[in-house]
Amino acid sequence: MPGGTSQTLRPFLWRATNLYPDTEIVSRNHDGLQRYTYSEYDARTCQLANALEAAGIETGDRVGTFCWNHSRHFETYFAVPSMGAQLHTINPLLPDAHIQYIVDNADDQLIFVDPSLAPKLAGAVADADDEFDGVDFVVMGSEESDDLEATPYESFIEDHESDYDWPDVDEDQPAGMCYTSGTTGNPKGVEYTQQMLWSHTMASQTPQGIPMADDDVVMPVVPMFHVNAWGMPFTATAGGAKQVFPGPSPEPEDLATLIEDEGVTISAGVPTVWLGLMDYCSENEVDLSALETVIVGGSAAPKSMIEWFDEQGVEVLHAWGMTETAPIGSVSHLKADLHDAASDTKIDKRSKQGLVVPGLEFKVVGDDGNEVAWNGEEFGELWIRGPWVTTEYFKRPEANETDFEDGWLKTGDVVTVDADGYMEIVDREKDVIKSGGEWISSVELENAIMAHDDVAEAAVVGVPHERWQERPVAFVVPGEDADRESLPDEIDDMLADEYPKWWLPDEIEFIKQVPKTATGKFSKKDIRQEYADQSLVDGQVPDEAAPDRD
Amino acid sequence: MPGGTSQTLRPFLWRATNLYPDTEIVSRNHDGLQRYTYSEYDARTCQLANALEAAGIETGDRVGTFCWNHSRHFETYFAVPSMGAQLHTINPLLPDAHIQYIVDNADDQLIFVDPSLAPKLAGAVADADDEFDGVDFVVMGSEESDDLEATPYESFIEDHESDYDWPDVDEDQPAGMCYTSGTTGNPKGVEYTQQMLWSHTMASQTPQGIPMADDDVVMPVVPMFHVNAWGMPFTATAGGAKQVFPGPSPEPEDLATLIEDEGVTISAGVPTVWLGLMDYCSENEVDLSALETVIVGGSAAPKSMIEWFDEQGVEVLHAWGMTETAPIGSVSHLKADLHDAASDTKIDKRSKQGLVVPGLEFKVVGDDGNEVAWNGEEFGELWIRGPWVTTEYFKRPEANETDFEDGWLKTGDVVTVDADGYMEIVDREKDVIKSGGEWISSVELENAIMAHDDVAEAAVVGVPHERWQERPVAFVVPGEDADRESLPDEIDDMLADEYPKWWLPDEIEFIKQVPKTATGKFSKKDIRQEYADQSLVDGQVPDEAAPDRD
Repeated sequence: MPGGTSQTLRPFLWRATNLYPDTEIVSRNHDGLQRYTYSEYDARTCQLANALEAAGIETGDRVGTFCWNHSRHFETYFAVPSMGAQLHTINPLLPDAHIQYIVDNADDQLIFVDPSLAPKLAGAVADADDEFDGVDFVVMGSEESDDLEATPYESFIEDHESDYDWPDVDEDQPAGMCYTSGTTGNPKGVEYTQQMLWSHTMASQTPQGIPMADDDVVMPVVPMFHVNAWGMPFTATAGGAKQVFPGPSPEPEDLATLIEDEGVTISAGVPTVWLGLMDYCSENEVDLSALETVIVGGSAAPKSMIEWFDEQGVEVLHAWGMTETAPIGSVSHLKADLHDAASDTKIDKRSKQGLVVPGLEFKVVGDDGNEVAWNGEEFGELWIRGPWVTTEYFKRPEANETDFEDGWLKTGDVVTVDADGYMEIVDREKDVIKSGGEWISSVELENAIMAHDDVAEAAVVGVPHERWQERPVAFVVPGEDADRESLPDEIDDMLADEYPKWWLPDEIEFIKQVPKTATGKFSKKDIRQEYADQSLVDGQVPDEAAPDRD
Repeated sequence: MPGGTSQTLRPFLWRATNLYPDTEIVSRNHDGLQRYTYSEYDARTCQLANALEAAGIETGDRVGTFCWNHSRHFETYFAVPSMGAQLHTINPLLPDAHIQYIVDNADDQLIFVDPSLAPKLAGAVADADDEFDGVDFVVMGSEESDDLEATPYESFIEDHESDYDWPDVDEDQPAGMCYTSGTTGNPKGVEYTQQMLWSHTMASQTPQGIPMADDDVVMPVVPMFHVNAWGMPFTATAGGAKQVFPGPSPEPEDLATLIEDEGVTISAGVPTVWLGLMDYCSENEVDLSALETVIVGGSAAPKSMIEWFDEQGVEVLHAWGMTETAPIGSVSHLKADLHDAASDTKIDKRSKQGLVVPGLEFKVVGDDGNEVAWNGEEFGELWIRGPWVTTEYFKRPEANETDFEDGWLKTGDVVTVDADGYMEIVDREKDVIKSGGEWISSVELENAIMAHDDVAEAAVVGVPHERWQERPVAFVVPGEDADRESLPDEIDDMLADEYPKWWLPDEIEFIKQVPKTATGKFSKKDIRQEYADQSLVDGQVPDEAAPDRD
C-alpha cells in the first residue's frame, strides 16, 4: 500500500535535538530555576523512557501526571508517548471523587506527582476504594514525599542510559489522554492518538494557527494538564523554539520576571492570568518588549485586554478549542482585507473565537437541523470534524451516541458565524462555569445542594466576574420547613466536604421557583438575565438576602 | 478506535471557499487572461467532478493531465482527488516512449490535454501500440483540437451541477501520482495518498516550510506536472492566498507582468526561470516591490542569484525535495543564531539545501553503512523518511527492494550536513542531467549512442550551463572503423528520432577511453573534472573537435 511512515511525535524531538542541541529549556521547578538544553533534555527523556521500561511500562500502558508546568513534566511529554505508552495528564484541581474516577477509568499504572500536589493526591488516595490499587507514584524532584509513598524522580531515572532506541509507533496508538469536566456526570476521557497530536502540532504551526520558530521563546501558562497546555510544548519543539515553564502556581510577578529575564515572545493562558499580569504591570515596572504574542483561550478575552496589550505592542490572539479538539479549532487572526478596517471593527473581529484553522471543517446546525447562514446573527450548535478532533469518548458508549454524528463532534457550543467567517460563541456550554480557566460543573453543585433535606430545588449559574471570568452563584428554593437563617451555611459546609474551595458558590440566593424552559428544564439563560437585572431576587423573591460570602 | 477523521484535501477547498469566497484566482490561459474567485472556482470544480462521474470515473480511477499551469488544470487538482479518484500529472516534455510507458503503467482512463500540447500527445498516441487504448481526451478550452479527438473542457463540464457532495475519502486512498525520470530504465511512479498530500500541505505551512496566508499572492512557475508544482496550489488554498497561474510556456516578460499586475508575493521555480527574469529585469523597468519570497529548487541556486534578489528586497529560499518526497524535504531558512553572522556565512548557509522541515527524519549513511558526523565534510547517502515520503514505487518491486529500507527512502543523493544542521548535496544523482528544471537521463542517451555500430563506448554527463544549469555532453569512444567525420551527425540524427530536441547533447567529444571507477563503472565525476580542465579532451584525446551544435 502506498503511503509514508507513521505520523508520530518522535520526529519533532529528533529535529530539535539535532538542529537545536544548544537551545535552552528553562523551568521554574519546585527545587528552583533550572536551565538546560535540548541536548540534555533529550538525554533525560531517554533516561526516563529506560526507567519506565524498567518499571514495567509497556506499549499501550497509561502513565498519569499530576503536575504543574515544568521541565520534568515536559520530559514525560515525549518519553511516554514515544516509547509507545500513553500520557494521561490529570487535572489536580478536580474534586477527589473525579480524580478517583479518572485514575480508575484510565487504569493508570504509574503517576508522576508534584511535591506541592502530593497532599492533594494523597487525600484522594486515602479516600479511595480500590481506584489506586497497584498504582506506583513518582514524585517530581530529588526528595521523597511526606504525603505519599513515592520514588523521587531523580532516583527513578538516574541509573539509566541516556539514549533510547525509539520504536516505530503506529500512528493510531493512543499517545495522550485528557478528561473533560463534563456538564453532567463523570468526566469523559478523550484519547489523543499519535496522529492526532502530530496533526494538531502541524496545524498549530500554520500561519492560521500559532506558529513557532527558532527565534521564539515560548511560555505556556495554561496548565500542562489542560489539553497538553494547548499543545504548545509539542509545537515549540517542532519549531525549535526556546521553552520556558513557569512552574507551580505562578504568580503575576513570576510571569513578569520570566518574560523579562528569558525574553518570552509567545505566551498563552486564560484571561484571568492576563488580568493578573495587567494588574501587576500597572503597579510595577515590567519590560514586556520581547513579548510579541499572547494567546488567550478558555474564556472570551475582554476587549479591554486586547486593547491594553495592543498598547504594549503585544498582539492578543484569541483562540478557541476544546478537550475534544486537542484543542485548537480556531484563532482570531485578522484577515488581510480587514487590516485597514476601522479600529472598532478590528477589535470586534479579534474578540470573536476566530477563523477555523486549515484542516478542519465545521457547520452550524440550527434547531431545525439545517445549517444556518453565515451572517453573524443566526445561531446554532457548532459541529466540527477533522484529523485532530476526537470521534469518541473513552469507554462512554452513551455519550458517543449523543455527542457524535457521522464523524462530526457536536460541541454543545451555540455560535454565530459572520460573513467574514469569524465564529463567535453566543451561548456556550450552558451548564459549565468557567472560573479562572477551570471548569465547575453547575449540575454537580445543583445535585449536591438538592441533596440537603431542606432544599426543594436549586440552580447554579456562572455570573460574570472581573478577575475569574465567571463565578458560581446558587439559586435555592428552600423547603417549607427550612431554617432560612442557617441553611446557607449548612449548604456551604456540605459542599466544602466534597469539593475544592474554589468550587463553592460565591453567593446563595433564595428564590421562589427556578425559571423553566418550555420542556421543563432549568432555564439558565433566564436565571442569568434575571440575576443581572435583579428581577429574580428582588422581584420574585421578597425576603431573603444572600449571605455575605466574602 | 480513537482518532480523528481522515486527512484529505477536502477541508482545504472548503476553507478557502467559505472564508475567502471573493479572493481571486488569476490565470494566463490558452484563451487569454482569466480571473475568477474561490467561490467560482469551487462551483467549476464541482461541475468538473460531476462531469467526471458522468464520464464513468470512479473511486480509484486514474485521470491524467498533460498541461501547463493554469486555472483549468488547478480545477482538476481538487476535483479528481476529492471525488476519490487519482490525479496523474504527466510531464509533457518527456520522450514519447516514456509517455507511452507512463500512461500504460498508470492505466489512465482519461487525459486532460492543453491545446498547445495536443500535437505532442497526438504524436505519442500515433506511435503507440495499445498504451492509449480506451483513453478519453479532454482538451483544455472551448474549442476542439485539430490534433486529437477530444472533448473541449468547457463542453465537458457546462451542463453539470455546480455543487457536489464530496465523499469521505479514506486517507490511504491514492490522490495524486507523478513519475520520476529515473536515472536508469523506465520512469518510476510515485503515488501520493490523501494523507501524504495533507501532510505535505501542513508541513509546507510551517514557518520552517514555505508558509502562505491570506495576504499572499502565490505564483508557481514550477510546472504543475512536477510534483504538483511543489504542492503550492494546495498550500495556497489551505492558507486562503490569491493564486496566479502563469500559463503555457511563460516567458520572462509574462512573469514580470504578472508579478507587477497581480502583486505576486511568493513565487517558485528552477534557477533557469529566475536567471531569465534577472536578464529581463536588467533590460526593462520591472516593479518587483510586491515580491517577498522566491523559492528556488530543482537545481542549486547560484549565490549570485541569492545576492541579486537580496538587492531587490526579495528573499530567496532554497528548497530541496524529490518526486519521492512530495516534494519538500528541506528549506534553507537562516537560523536565528545566524542572523548576525557575516554576510558570507549567511549566503553560504542559504545556498545549501537547508534544514529539514518538521515531521521528517533523515540520516546520512557512509560507505561503511554507518551514519556520518554532521561536520560539513563527511558525506554519505541521504536516507529520509516521514509521512509524505513514499515507501514504495508503483508496480516496481525490483526498485522497491533496492531503494527503500525499514521505511527509509535511500535517495541516491550524496550529502554533507554541517554542525548547524544544514544539508548540502555534494554529488547528487550522479547520472541525471538537470536542464532547465527538467531531467535528462544520461544512461538512456548513453545506451542510445552505444547502439550505433561505430561506437565502442559512450558516457554522457551534465556540464554547467549558464542558462540551463546543465546541458548534456557526450564522450564517445569511436569504433576502430568509424568515420570520425560523419559519426557525430549520425549519432545526432539517431537521437533526434527518439528524443526531444532538448535532450540532444550540446557537444559530442571523442575520447580514447571512458574513465572508470575501481569497480569498473563510468566515473562521471572524473569525466566532469577532466572536461572542466580540458585534460580529457586535450590531453588524452588528441584529434577530434566537437561538432558545433548551436
